[in-house]
Formats: sequence, C-alpha cells, structure tokens
Amino acid sequence: MLKAFGMSLSGNCYKVKLALTQLELPFEWHEVDLRHGEHKQPAFLRMNPNGQIPVLQIDEQTFLPESNAILYYLAHGTDLMPQGKLEQAQVMQWMFFEQYCHEPNIAVARFIVKLAGRPASREQELQKCIVGGYKALDVMEQHLGKNVFFVSNRYSIADIALYAYTHKAEDGGISLDNYPAIRAWLQRVASQDRHIAM
Amino acid sequence: MLKAFGMSLSGNCYKVKLALTQLELPFEWHEVDLRHGEHKQPAFLRMNPNGQIPVLQIDEQTFLPESNAILYYLAHGTDLMPQGKLEQAQVMQWMFFEQYCHEPNIAVARFIVKLAGRPASREQELQKCIVGGYKALDVMEQHLGKNVFFVSNRYSIADIALYAYTHKAEDGGISLDNYPAIRAWLQRVASQDRHIAM
Repeated sequence: MLKAFGMSLSGNCYKVKLALTQLELPFEWHEVDLRHGEHKQPAFLRMNPNGQIPVLQIDEQTFLPESNAILYYLAHGTDLMPQGKLEQAQVMQWMFFEQYCHEPNIAVARFIVKLAGRPASREQELQKCIVGGYKALDVMEQHLGKNVFFVSNRYSIADIALYAYTHKAEDGGISLDNYPAIRAWLQRVASQDRHIAM
Repeated sequence: MLKAFGMSLSGNCYKVKLALTQLELPFEWHEVDLRHGEHKQPAFLRMNPNGQIPVLQIDEQTFLPESNAILYYLAHGTDLMPQGKLEQAQVMQWMFFEQYCHEPNIAVARFIVKLAGRPASREQELQKCIVGGYKALDVMEQHLGKNVFFVSNRYSIADIALYAYTHKAEDGGISLDNYPAIRAWLQRVASQDRHIAM
C-alpha cells in the first residue's frame, strides 16, 4: 500500500491526498510534525534529503518527494493526465507555473498570516507575496476566461496543483473578489467526483 | 520548424537551446530584448501571458512557456527521457526541485551580481540566495556522490535542467570548491555528444 508523509494543513500535501482519493488508491497517511522539526530528523531525511513534505513511499526503499512529481506519478495512465505529448507538456507548464509563480506567493502569504501569526518582521515579505499572488491570479483568470479547466478543457492534475492554494488564497489576505472565472473554476473542481475538502 | 524565444544570457533559455541541439531538431532562435521590455509588449504576451522567457513556438497558434515543460515536450520519446513511470516521476522531482529550491537562489544570485551590478539595495536578498543556493547544492552533492546522473544513472533532461545554473553558480558568488561530486558531474554533462556552451 502507498504511504504518504505530509501535514494536513499544507496545500502541497493536500494535492497528494486529493489525487490518491480521486484515483481510489488505498493509502496510509502519516502526519509529519513540522512544528517539532520531524522533517529535519535523520529518519525523515533518509526519505527526502531536501527535508520537505510531502513524500510518497512507493515501496520499502523508494521515496518520491515534490508534490507535483507525486501527482505526475499517480496520474500516469489515468484520466487525470491527458494522453498527447503537447497536452502533457501543457500540464507540466501549469504545474511549473504553480511552483514558481503561484505557490511561493500565495502559499507563503497564507503561511505568514494564518500559521505564523503575521509578525511585523515579515510584513514586507507578505506585501511582496500579495503583489506576486495577484499577478499569478491575473494569468489564471485570463486563461480560465476562455477555458473550463487548465488543459484541454478536462480536469487534470494541473487543476489539482493550482486548486490547492488558490482556494485558500484569502487565508493570506489575497481576495478572489475580482476573479469571477477563477471562482467558477474552483466550484467546478470542488464538484468533481470523490472531491475531498482540505 | 520550431521557434524558440529567449535570451542567450538566461540559463532557463540555454536549457532549451541545449536540448534542441542535442536532439538535432532544426530550430530558429529569436533573441528577446528584456532590457527594453519586449516581454511586456502585447506581441510577446500573446505567446505567454505570464511575460516570461523562454517560449517554444510549436505551430502558428501554439506556444509553450516554462523551460522545464519545454524540455518535457522536446524529450518525450527520446533518450533524454527514461521510459518507466517511476523514472519519469524522478525526472520531474529533480526538475521541480530545480525550479523551487535551486533556480530562485542560484540564478537570482547570478542575476544580482553579474547582470544588476550588485546594488547595495539587493545585498540582503543576495545573501539569502547564497544561503539557499548552498542548501540546494548540498542536496545535489549528496545525490551525485552515489549516482552518475540524476535519474537511473543516465543523462536526461533532469541533468540539463540542473546543469544550466549550477555551472554558472560562481557568477553569483556561490563557490563549487566544496562540491567534488557536482564538479565531476558537470564534466560528465559537458562531455555529452553535441554539448554546446551557454
């Protein structure tokens, strides 16, 4: 059985739990205690020397880190991944956008506000994340104004990757009020079969 | 014929040029004038609403942004991409590591020092990038101490993605002196057939 190591509050970990659930793959969830530094301990670093969650354990010796790489592994050959080479590359395009332009702003803003208690020492960083977050949402809004889902108008792991932190953007002080196409897409994602809340 | 839009000084663009060359795919290279804001103009934003380079033009109406998504597209079905699902996911793992932990530190340090002239206003950011850069190199060194290339001991797009900015790390004040396994790997990458310099 697959084992997933993560923290339920993390959007990156939620992506994995959502995909496992929608694909009806049996799995064990292991909650990692980041507050007490479990991810810096030798037992965790043996699974992922980079010290980050989530990690998927595939067999006794095989551990796969990086949320979007895990989505790729799980979705391979399923309806959550399109078949064509261009369409697959477009899924990658949106997942790299998510990790480079979206998550470092929208997830970090949420972390600073909701989990770190918005300390004054991080206010400048927060404001930078909010600006960057809106820029990422602008790109998504433009695309979703013309498309039902991110790739080929079909629900895929690109939607799972971008849904995770977008639907919690307001936790970080980033409002979705001016993004009607994103809000409609969030509803479409949430209405997919076997959807689970974060 | 494929057209690639990028800037020769950029490691993200170099990845694309290197893969196109090693795969012996005929292509036209279009240099984008970032200094004069060509990437913010409507003609460029029609190709990539996110305003970033590189972009691969596949046909009259089809444009693919994100360097590692372009590598995925180009390498599909070639020797630069392993065949197995796990091995492909491991290629993704290292490419997401590159875009999340490596490039935002090592490429940004290089940009601040080499291209922006190391302004005092960015010194704090630079020091943060240098710390993060060494952390990414530590993870790579540990892996390359036991592996000849990043995935399956075979040269792949994971190596191309990580080579781009690693071999220019010293431009940003990040020394490779304490990374013998990385230095040996850089030489192995540079000795591959049809390798081109950045």
